[in-house]
Amino acid sequence: MKVAKQKSEALARLAALVRQMKVGMLTTIEADGSLRSRPLETVEVDPEGCLWFFTQAHSPKAARAQAADHQVALSYADPRDEDFASISGTARVVRDEDRMRGLWSRDLERWFPRGLEDPDLALLEVRIDKAEYWDEREGDNVKIGTLAA
Amino acid sequence: MKVAKQKSEALARLAALVRQMKVGMLTTIEADGSLRSRPLETVEVDPEGCLWFFTQAHSPKAARAQAADHQVALSYADPRDEDFASISGTARVVRDEDRMRGLWSRDLERWFPRGLEDPDLALLEVRIDKAEYWDEREGDNVKIGTLAA
Repeated sequence: MKVAKQKSEALARLAALVRQMKVGMLTTIEADGSLRSRPLETVEVDPEGCLWFFTQAHSPKAARAQAADHQVALSYADPRDEDFASISGTARVVRDEDRMRGLWSRDLERWFPRGLEDPDLALLEVRIDKAEYWDEREGDNVKIGTLAA
Repeated sequence: MKVAKQKSEALARLAALVRQMKVGMLTTIEADGSLRSRPLETVEVDPEGCLWFFTQAHSPKAARAQAADHQVALSYADPRDEDFASISGTARVVRDEDRMRGLWSRDLERWFPRGLEDPDLALLEVRIDKAEYWDEREGDNVKIGTLAA
């Protein structure tokens, strides 16, 4: 997993928590109005604080992530250390072969057995609108406000 | 945390995962259409498979859990063991003093310092509509379909 240098101390600590937990639960609004969460392995936190994942461009997950004004939630939890991170964000599917090659690793084959040969392979980017984290070791509950440019 | 005997093997294993992870992330739809997740300590899985939490009746969390047709998502994650549980459900706030006394424990004081004396203390019940879990040790991804009566 790649973690770029972040723009603020709060984002840097959020990125460190994401690196520690790695798998997030992505929640989307389904067509019937219900909410559904799915585990996703984070592959990058970029210099803008955006989170990147592999997906399939025509999967229900990608479709739901881009419905309802692209609104998604991402949560990361480590109940043993009592560390939690909550991200409210905006999702989009990105097809960028160079970037996919740079982010691919062999352990992703369990989720995407055809790997980079899969013509439907794509990236899912989640841009953070708001975030909050609870770091028990530090005794902190830090809210990261709107990160609009 | 109380875990009642469950009606099916799939629900019993889901309840065991919830007991192991204990703190879930509750996702609700905010007034502006964004999704937001908050950590919540589970205090009971009842014989009907419903999940119970303490809350404050007039908290934003309780308000959002009962908006948008009461639709919520609950996710539990243990990234070290690669165990994940995802619940799509329906939430309601319940004021039942006997039940609150039965479920209260001292360690909840960190979230609710006034404890049972707090006149705004209430319970949040999440009824499971659909659920899914990933138990890496067992190599399973089990979907629990609609549990409507």
